[in-house]
Amino acid sequence: MRVGDRHFRAVWWEDGPVRFIDQRLLPHKFEIASARSYAEVENAIREMGVRGAPTIGVMAAHGLAIAARDGEKIEHAYGTLQAARPTAVNLRVGLDAVMSHTDSPERALEAARAHDDAEVSAAEAIGRMGVELMSQGTRVATHCNAGWLAAQDWGTALSLIYRAERDGKMPHIYAGETRPRLQGSRITAWELGQEGVSYEIVADSAMASLMRRGLIDLVITGADCIAANGDVANKIGTYPLALAAREHEVPFYVAAPLTTFDRAVATGDEIPIEERSPDEVLTAEGVDAAGDSVRIRIAPADATAINPAFDITPAGLVSGLISEAGIVPASTAGIERAFGAAA
Amino acid sequence: MRVGDRHFRAVWWEDGPVRFIDQRLLPHKFEIASARSYAEVENAIREMGVRGAPTIGVMAAHGLAIAARDGEKIEHAYGTLQAARPTAVNLRVGLDAVMSHTDSPERALEAARAHDDAEVSAAEAIGRMGVELMSQGTRVATHCNAGWLAAQDWGTALSLIYRAERDGKMPHIYAGETRPRLQGSRITAWELGQEGVSYEIVADSAMASLMRRGLIDLVITGADCIAANGDVANKIGTYPLALAAREHEVPFYVAAPLTTFDRAVATGDEIPIEERSPDEVLTAEGVDAAGDSVRIRIAPADATAINPAFDITPAGLVSGLISEAGIVPASTAGIERAFGAAA
Repeated sequence: MRVGDRHFRAVWWEDGPVRFIDQRLLPHKFEIASARSYAEVENAIREMGVRGAPTIGVMAAHGLAIAARDGEKIEHAYGTLQAARPTAVNLRVGLDAVMSHTDSPERALEAARAHDDAEVSAAEAIGRMGVELMSQGTRVATHCNAGWLAAQDWGTALSLIYRAERDGKMPHIYAGETRPRLQGSRITAWELGQEGVSYEIVADSAMASLMRRGLIDLVITGADCIAANGDVANKIGTYPLALAAREHEVPFYVAAPLTTFDRAVATGDEIPIEERSPDEVLTAEGVDAAGDSVRIRIAPADATAINPAFDITPAGLVSGLISEAGIVPASTAGIERAFGAAA
Repeated sequence: MRVGDRHFRAVWWEDGPVRFIDQRLLPHKFEIASARSYAEVENAIREMGVRGAPTIGVMAAHGLAIAARDGEKIEHAYGTLQAARPTAVNLRVGLDAVMSHTDSPERALEAARAHDDAEVSAAEAIGRMGVELMSQGTRVATHCNAGWLAAQDWGTALSLIYRAERDGKMPHIYAGETRPRLQGSRITAWELGQEGVSYEIVADSAMASLMRRGLIDLVITGADCIAANGDVANKIGTYPLALAAREHEVPFYVAAPLTTFDRAVATGDEIPIEERSPDEVLTAEGVDAAGDSVRIRIAPADATAINPAFDITPAGLVSGLISEAGIVPASTAGIERAFGAAA
């Protein structure tokens, strides 16, 4: 997708290091960073320089290829990379795509690049498959960032939006700001601005009242992991959005590539939920009047916070799952059908 | 309530000016400000130096008494003060308490002070009436600030908490941070810390998942206006909290003095909802590493936002209304009973 008039992916291989757009600095600075070792790849994932379930899978795949090239202990590299973030299943899928080729550095890199290209194709297909949900001027609420920085080149939820925009449907997006890390205000807003899509930012807790006022036609979010029964783990705040959508009969869809589905996990209750530092809630990051990056403390000096990074949305609240295999019900049967169609 | 080892109200009369704790500076600075004219009172309310429905009613009452003393045009002063914030009915109630006495500056001031004392009594009674809802170690979620800074001396929702704490019940509070102005992280956290009450701050959108995990026994919020049918206008984010509470069968109570009830308003749909500046959503305020106050920009420079300051929680989601008249159902009959008991 576009940054100014150039085309970028979130992560790409460039003759040795893996390059990535440092998502911590957006929207205030557009900076390309490098990871030269698998340890640097792990750090970029853990510290959220690279984020978004499909994108971290691609990043991890490249990390394992770097480990193979560098003659590192592969099992150890695999374990380290997998532990960087616990919730997104894509991380393991990306590693597994490379793991059986690590005896040859060339083939390991080839496997990582193939995984990358497959994720780009899946993200593009999600938009094509899902765009039928969008009419002229559809007003769509989304949460966190499920755009091209989260899922290489097209995104998941935002892939539908970009497709609809190109089809001349002129969608309008309500982007939830997504406390505590504000991926909505920072990254989704930046992506939509670069692509010229109409949007407004909304405090997360205001979405329900916008639905009550009839301002939202459709909710689409991404996912970090989808269980075999259709339960969805996604960024904290997805679940209350789904509760509000049901109350107001607003369709609630989840968009994700098949790499985000974990059929080995029976229900959402089995998905490990990452607890992140209380500091994320007690502070906020942005730029001051001079344009310099600054982290401010909001709460009293001795305050504490509880900071689960994800929540579980039960399948019963999900109108449908959109993947490269089309739109299916959020159920075991629906998911089996999607995998059958893709096979 | 306590600030260190001294006792303060949010607003008080001091031989001429009305003094107030400037709530915009909390928790980082404790500063007492003065309003010397009714225009300065209006400004303190509009700019949220003073906030919380009952407290702004007391502040406005003093403003009208100052206008009477200064020989201002009373009708104009009334209109200006009432327009400072549109949603809280208490603003008008505070003004009306003084209005019929404005021909005598002394009696106007007396009426303002009587209104103040009545609000303190009501806030204290709310805690006494509602504390039966609290058992040993009850884990209570609250939103925004419904403490002694919002309702003179005791608070509304937090009046129950302070009473329970004094009764040795050791409650634990989950304080929703309350974007965009973060009254939960800033003010509720500060109040609870000063009173030694156990608490953790939570991103607003994480409350539903805490309920799903069984961590919350009870939700109590304040209100800015309660309609004749029991619909509640309160800080944006109250409504999704009520939806989540219903889903998880967590009792959801609203605490407010009778001055917050507007029986002239049939339902919540008739309550005017204040829209505040998009800048509140696009920025955040706190202190930097040096302890200096700073406002940071989060979103891209050209971003826009939609920022309703309140939402409506339908009476059907409210387990009960707690006022100085006791606990009643959130219904026309319940509200009539409360006013009957108080008469």
